[in-house]
Amino acid sequence: MVYLVGAGPGDIELFTLKAINILKKADVILYDALVNPEFTQFCKKDTIKIDVGKRKGKHLKNQEEINELLIKYAKMNKEVVRLKGGTPFVFGRGYEEVKALKQIGITPKIISGVSSTTSVPESFMIPSIDRSFSDSYRTITGHDLNIFNEIITSYHERENLIIMMGAHKAKQIVQSLLKKQFPKNTPIAYLSKGTTKDEKCIISTLEEINNKDDKFFEELKNLTPIITYVGNTINALK
Amino acid sequence: MVYLVGAGPGDIELFTLKAINILKKADVILYDALVNPEFTQFCKKDTIKIDVGKRKGKHLKNQEEINELLIKYAKMNKEVVRLKGGTPFVFGRGYEEVKALKQIGITPKIISGVSSTTSVPESFMIPSIDRSFSDSYRTITGHDLNIFNEIITSYHERENLIIMMGAHKAKQIVQSLLKKQFPKNTPIAYLSKGTTKDEKCIISTLEEINNKDDKFFEELKNLTPIITYVGNTINALK
Repeated sequence: MVYLVGAGPGDIELFTLKAINILKKADVILYDALVNPEFTQFCKKDTIKIDVGKRKGKHLKNQEEINELLIKYAKMNKEVVRLKGGTPFVFGRGYEEVKALKQIGITPKIISGVSSTTSVPESFMIPSIDRSFSDSYRTITGHDLNIFNEIITSYHERENLIIMMGAHKAKQIVQSLLKKQFPKNTPIAYLSKGTTKDEKCIISTLEEINNKDDKFFEELKNLTPIITYVGNTINALK
Repeated sequence: MVYLVGAGPGDIELFTLKAINILKKADVILYDALVNPEFTQFCKKDTIKIDVGKRKGKHLKNQEEINELLIKYAKMNKEVVRLKGGTPFVFGRGYEEVKALKQIGITPKIISGVSSTTSVPESFMIPSIDRSFSDSYRTITGHDLNIFNEIITSYHERENLIIMMGAHKAKQIVQSLLKKQFPKNTPIAYLSKGTTKDEKCIISTLEEINNKDDKFFEELKNLTPIITYVGNTINALK
């Protein structure tokens, strides 16, 4: 059996019981960079653990190599775990792995984890959505500015944006939102390394961030992984 | 100490280790209707367990009564757990409870759970977002059609909608999306009771649903809780 397992946002205690029970019987584990390395406490001693994560923008293994490893071990009838940060089907290319496995007649099981998209804001006491402030939140990649600009066409005061992988384009994202008539005083939060002991939060407004110098944006890059949160629900902190 | 704890989408194994460790020491637990009642296996024998959930549209306790109970037990220096379906800060009025507790000088801890918004689609092998199909997903309440119509102003083929609490307005939601130029063949899925043994999935298109009779929509109401998922990423199932 092959399992795609969510490891949650970072805090080792946010592993689910189901994830732990599967790790206990795993023969092989392929894990990502953002997975808390303490997961090994749940494994058998002789479990094969393979780091397939990304470091400084470079994958130790590319997606094709990961798929090949999954297929190789699956064909050996091993209990194979693909351990992913957050939850398997929110970003993270889980579907591509499912597709590759289905081509050899194997349907993996998807084991949901605590998604970073909601738990990282929670770690800083910020709701993703709360009826006092909001009726909607949009989770979007900040990696591709063209598609970001195509999708975000207008502002609504009761919708929040949860932007993943936006740290390297932080300045352009803020400029773009202001151009789209997001009010200057809209709250924005940069949520770094949420749920871990190194977590850090920068809270500001679109206008203030727009006035920051290059040094600020350079330093921001060093705080990845970052979730960029934009919206009035940040006022729940007051 | 007071904890707002996410119980996940339904599957008892999707409780986190952190939730279980807190339940073990809890003196009082206030729990919602959608929480899997098997959580009691993690508790001490003498833990006070109070059902504050909603049944057939009627709350056993209203929000003010829940806040009062939280405050009462917190003042008694008990270990108090407010156990909520999904995760505390995605719908579910977690913020209102935090606000009430802060007014008497108590800041509760937020313990993230597995959110239904992402794990229910996963339970049916549907990603919330995957780069093969999508760059964004919008989580929105279907409870208030006016605000729904205000927020959803346009269609993008690479964005999915994850509509919560939309079962009772299923027909109007589909009509509204078609009016907003969502293509007729856009995939739609009704995901009922996801991650539980009773889970059920209806997959169709906007046009097909628009042509359904009243009986279909009446039966849909009986399948709550339902997540209504709209978007091309449903094609990942093919």
